[in-house]
Amino acid sequence: MTELLSDTARDTVLQPLLDSGWAMVDGRDAIHKTYKFANFIEAFGWMTRAALWAEKWNHHPEWSNVYRTVEVTLTTHDVGGLSSLDTKMASKLDTL
Amino acid sequence: MTELLSDTARDTVLQPLLDSGWAMVDGRDAIHKTYKFANFIEAFGWMTRAALWAEKWNHHPEWSNVYRTVEVTLTTHDVGGLSSLDTKMASKLDTL
Repeated sequence: MTELLSDTARDTVLQPLLDSGWAMVDGRDAIHKTYKFANFIEAFGWMTRAALWAEKWNHHPEWSNVYRTVEVTLTTHDVGGLSSLDTKMASKLDTL
Repeated sequence: MTELLSDTARDTVLQPLLDSGWAMVDGRDAIHKTYKFANFIEAFGWMTRAALWAEKWNHHPEWSNVYRTVEVTLTTHDVGGLSSLDTKMASKLDTL
């Protein structure tokens, strides 16, 4: 079962993400990051790779795109906050 | 040169879009539409087709996606408002 991140997981798994460009969303148990690319082709190419992982893992981001910028918010609606699915996805997005 | 839509074009080209699901954005000379799909695969598949047209025409939407919903805003930043590029793109998006 997917569960909210424990305090321990927040210290050990979430905190490194927050130290590397992710940020908590005001008023939500969710994380956000802005990715900037060289141009739209790079931005949407990255989104396409991310989309395949999102579908494969059945865990989909809230995201927006304007030309070379992609804004991503991750949370787990089923549990009303951050779960290990979000930290796993955040780490994956950072490697794409 | 790309120019702001004339009053005539707003009557003849923009109005039909506003009658078919597009809406003016509050406080901006821009149009917006929400598309709902069966699931993420359909939503992102549609975005991918749209992205190819956007790049081909060098006219990119402001858009966001949450699972099966895609929100699209169109405007022409170079002219500070709606141009024929936006009505052309809106019509294309409706056919994809």
